[in-house]
Formats: sequence, C-alpha cells, structure tokens
Amino acid sequence: MTSPPSPATPLDPAAVGDTVEQLLYGFLDEQEHAAPDLLPELALFTGQLRDFLAAGGKRIRPLMCITGWAAITDQTPPPVLWRTAASLELFHAFALIHDDIMDHSDTRRGRPTAHRALAAHHHGHTTADRMGVNAAILLGDLALGWSYELLHTPDLPPPELAHVWPLLNALRTETLVGQYLDLATTGHPTADTDTAWRIIRYKTAKYTIERPLHLGATLAGATRSQLDALSAYALPLGEAFQLRDDLLGVYGEPDQTGKSRLDDLREGKHTVLVATAMAQATMPQQRALCRRFGHPRLDEANAEVIRDVLTGTGAREATEQMITAKRDQALTTLETADLLPGGTHWLRHFAHTITSRTA
Amino acid sequence: MTSPPSPATPLDPAAVGDTVEQLLYGFLDEQEHAAPDLLPELALFTGQLRDFLAAGGKRIRPLMCITGWAAITDQTPPPVLWRTAASLELFHAFALIHDDIMDHSDTRRGRPTAHRALAAHHHGHTTADRMGVNAAILLGDLALGWSYELLHTPDLPPPELAHVWPLLNALRTETLVGQYLDLATTGHPTADTDTAWRIIRYKTAKYTIERPLHLGATLAGATRSQLDALSAYALPLGEAFQLRDDLLGVYGEPDQTGKSRLDDLREGKHTVLVATAMAQATMPQQRALCRRFGHPRLDEANAEVIRDVLTGTGAREATEQMITAKRDQALTTLETADLLPGGTHWLRHFAHTITSRTA
Repeated sequence: MTSPPSPATPLDPAAVGDTVEQLLYGFLDEQEHAAPDLLPELALFTGQLRDFLAAGGKRIRPLMCITGWAAITDQTPPPVLWRTAASLELFHAFALIHDDIMDHSDTRRGRPTAHRALAAHHHGHTTADRMGVNAAILLGDLALGWSYELLHTPDLPPPELAHVWPLLNALRTETLVGQYLDLATTGHPTADTDTAWRIIRYKTAKYTIERPLHLGATLAGATRSQLDALSAYALPLGEAFQLRDDLLGVYGEPDQTGKSRLDDLREGKHTVLVATAMAQATMPQQRALCRRFGHPRLDEANAEVIRDVLTGTGAREATEQMITAKRDQALTTLETADLLPGGTHWLRHFAHTITSRTA
Repeated sequence: MTSPPSPATPLDPAAVGDTVEQLLYGFLDEQEHAAPDLLPELALFTGQLRDFLAAGGKRIRPLMCITGWAAITDQTPPPVLWRTAASLELFHAFALIHDDIMDHSDTRRGRPTAHRALAAHHHGHTTADRMGVNAAILLGDLALGWSYELLHTPDLPPPELAHVWPLLNALRTETLVGQYLDLATTGHPTADTDTAWRIIRYKTAKYTIERPLHLGATLAGATRSQLDALSAYALPLGEAFQLRDDLLGVYGEPDQTGKSRLDDLREGKHTVLVATAMAQATMPQQRALCRRFGHPRLDEANAEVIRDVLTGTGAREATEQMITAKRDQALTTLETADLLPGGTHWLRHFAHTITSRTA
C-alpha cells in the first residue's frame, strides 16, 4: 500500500496537486502489480490514465477537499483525506473521458482526447475510430471503478468512511444526471435560463465546489452549520466557475485552455450565456444564432458570427457581471462563517483564481 | 435501509433470483428517495434499470456467490452475502449495457437494448440515436457506481468487506480487460485459439464462475485449499459456459436466447468455435468464412453459409465435445473437494444446467 507523501504545507496548491498525482501514480502501479496476467493490455489503460493526469488539469476538486478540511481543523491531513482527494481526481478523469466521447471532442488539456489517442493506438484496425471510442468507454469504466477502489484499503478507518460514502454517492449521481441534463438540452439555442442554471447546479456547482468541500470538512468533523456555511460559499462560486468556463469555451485561447473553442458551439451547449443572448436578441440576431449554433461542422468564420451576436446582445458582458456578483456573494459569506482563518484564507484565494482564470 | 428478505431455502435458484431482484429494486427506490431534486431525470435511469432486471437474465453470478457460501458453511446467508450477490448482478447489468453499445446490438433479453430503448425515449430529438448511446453510457456508469454503493452501508460489518473488496476489484478489472481483448480481436476470422481461450478465461470463466464462488466462500471463511478446489471446478465450467454461449450466438433460437443470432457473426467475434473452424477449413471454406464473417450487414442467407462452414469443418461438433469434456472435468474435481455436501449438490446441478442450456 502506497502511503501518501506529506507535502510541506498542505494548502500550497502545487503541493496538493503533486501529492494527489503521486498517490494516483502509485495506485495505478499497484493495479498493474496485482494483475500481471492481464499485462500488456492493462498497461495500455493505466498508461493512458497516467498520460491524462500528467497532461495537466487544475485539480480543483482535490484542492477544495483539502481546503474543506483546513476550514474545520488545524490538524495535519490524514491519509483518508488524501485518498478522498485523489478519488475525486480519478472520478473527474472518468467523467472527462466519457464526456469527451459524448461530445465528440478531439482535444483535451492540449492533447488528443482519450478516444482519439486510443483510435491512433489502433491505427490500421479496419474500424480504428470505433475501437478508440470503445476502448475509451472501457478506460472510463476502469477509472470510475478505481475511484471507488482507492478508498477500499484495509488501513483506512471505516468509521470515517461511513460518513464519506453517502456524500460521494450523491456527488456521482448528481454529476451523471447533470451530464444527462446537459446532453438532453444540447442542440438548439433557447432562452430557457432556468434549465441552464439547473445544469450548472448539478454538473458544476455541487460537483466541483460544494461536495468536495463537504467531503474534507466532514472528515474533519464539521458541524451542520459549518457545512451550511461552506454551501453558502460554494454554490454561487460554483456557478461563477461554470459561467467562466462557458465564456472560455467560446472566447478562450485554445493555447491556454487546451480545448477547441468551436466544440461548445458545434455541440450547441445550452448555457446561461446563450440563453441570455437568445432572450435579448433581435429577430435578425436570433436567426443568425439559430442557423449556426449546434451545427456539427461550424467553421471559424461562422463561429465568429455567433460570438458577435453573444457580444452584441450584451450576453457576454452580462455573464461577466454575473461572475463578479456571484464571486462577491461567495466572498461575503466568509465574513460571518464559523470557519478557521487558515481555510478561509484559501477559500478567499480560490474565489479569485477560479473566476478570473484564462485556462 | 432495505433488509434483504430471507428466502425459504437459500439455494432454490428462483428464490435467489427473487431475493436479489427485491434487494436491487429496494436499492433503486432508495437512490430516488435520496435525490428528490434530481427527479424526473434520475427516474428515467432507475426505470431503465428496473426494466432491464425485470426482463430476465439467468442470475448466474448471484447463484454462484450464494453457492460459494453454501459450499463452506451451513449457516444462514447474512445480509452482506446477499448484498454482494446483488452487487454482482448490478455490475453485470452495467457490463451488458456498455457491451451492447460497443457491439451495436439491438436486442437483449428479448427487448431493445438500453441504447435502443433510450433512443426511442428521445424520439423526435434531431440526434435520437446518438442521445440513446450517450444516455446508455451514463446509465451504465450509474449502474457501475451503484454496484459499489450497494456495499457501502453503515450496517455491513467492515472486517468482512475488507476481504471482499480485493476480489471484487480483480473481478472488475479482469472483466473490463477481457472485454477489451474481445473487442481488439474482433473483425476477421483467424485460427488463433490461444487468444480465444485467454478471452474466455477473463471475460467469462473468472468473471462468471470463479470470482463469484470465491466471493461467497470468502465471506464464509473459506481456507486457501477450499478456494483452490472451487477454482478447479470453476475454470473448466466457465470455459464450457462460454463455448455454449458461442454456439447459442450462432445456432441458438432467438425466441429462447433473447438475442439476435446474427450479432456475433456480423461483429466477427473471435471465438474458439471460429478459430477451430479456421484451423480445420479447406481453402474454399476459409474463403467462404473470410468473405462473410465480420460483415456488418450480413444477411440470414450468408449467415447460413457461415454456419454450414462451422458445421462442415467439424468445429461445431468439436465445440460440443469440448463442452462435455470440460463439464466432466469440473464435475470430477468435486469428488475429492473439501466442500460441504449441500453446496456440492448445487455445484453439480449448475454444471449440468449451465452447459446444456438453450437460453
């Protein structure tokens, strides 16, 4: 069993990322060692996961998990906390791998998505693209299973895990149903902002901020009112996080985001940005959007027409204002929250970095 | 928490199936009750799983799990055993749902496969087929996660689970890697029987028979030599099970199997049956196979040509003989095994039913 390294200061974000990565690499090594008969096929999958983790990622969920702990106690984070943080990151790898299949995305973290990389691996196979998708479904399945397996170690104290499991179960169900809502509303632009907010709530705000904070805080023995204080911070900040993501998906620099800025427009992602534009658009602007948005072969020139409409209707600026307002709402809650100064310092820090990021 | 009903005799196969189904239906109810905000979308998924379970299935893995217990002890099966058995069935639902996507299968258990049923649910959506596949990926993901969640209950004794988790992890990894091997070798007929046997070992023999027996036996406190005795029975029987499955996939009656008997031939599944035929075939027979096997739009007339080759080369008869030999090998091991008479009775019974089934 790999014991997690202890970073010098648990809340140095880079050190948190390193610790989680080392724990995950060690876990993947263990999986290979436990099944020598399944090599080399198993190594194809563990290798893909290592590449995926090494390609970057913001490690926001592990950071939130560790911050949730630090908001409640000054004690050194125990192994169960690190493994929970790592489990969140492995679950996230699963979610992105399957999302990229569903969204037909070619690029993630500046590299080919898993199904594209696995299709390249099967180059020469008569149905390489299909093999890539099928192998990536299996890769995601393995990552999902292993995100549970990470917490199934004899050395973890079960009484603590009993509190963690229902939260992790809720997080997983919310995220998968949120992803379904996302898919089911994709295709054509509408002015339905209520649905766009509902998707954000489950697919992002709870998944990325609230539940990870609660997991760390619960392991630290948080009270109900402390968990509520974390929710009051997490939900508006999570919404602001997704609004920023939506803007980056349309206006971001692919060099920085690692993703195409055509994918969301080609998919026709139902976002608050687009719903706001539709609500404010003139008839010619609505027509310009409806003709292009969700077109699977949308080119850059037509994407630029969409961007002009999103900007021209004021939706881009309105989204920026919502991000600022929601960030400030999150920050305000911290002023009266019954949370430790150390954790609160980092909650404040992340409220700024998460909402002003360019990647 | 739903407490599992106690069937009158734990090894009445119908009663085992009923108990597992009731436990799973209760668990799905709990998932809905735990997340009222996610309805009605969550109910779409739980409803699909209920339909999938209600459509039938042989419940072989739960039966093996309970039989593994009965081979070691006369005590009444405890809740943890029932939940482990139910977890295996839910994992199996996940595996079939994702397999059917990868294999492009339209029919399962005599009904539309999950991705076809979900495509029908999204009838009218511009990309209903794609929505069906994507929603079925998510449905499988939920079933996989819940197959873990079933064992995460505060009332289950953790020391017992510590022995179960590594076995379940191995079962899951073996099955997924076995499925990958299956996919990677699909397409063209070859005489490579070694690979065909390797696929059977992981995708079927360990997954369907050996690991489920070990799970039940481990929970009952089996010794190493008892586990070895169960392996000696399980591996040849599991091989015979898959050989029967391969024959049913080509020659079976769809009314009884609930599956098309064109799917395996259209996919070009690499089986011992086909590898044996290729090894024995004359040049004209080889050509006849190579031209048709793995053709995605193969019709019944050309399927019949393939069947004639498989029969004409003697591969069908050789496969029948292998099934009998492996069944007898499994039965022989029971004569000297240190296992209880009650469990051994059922092991003997299942060796016959599993290998002579028509569905």
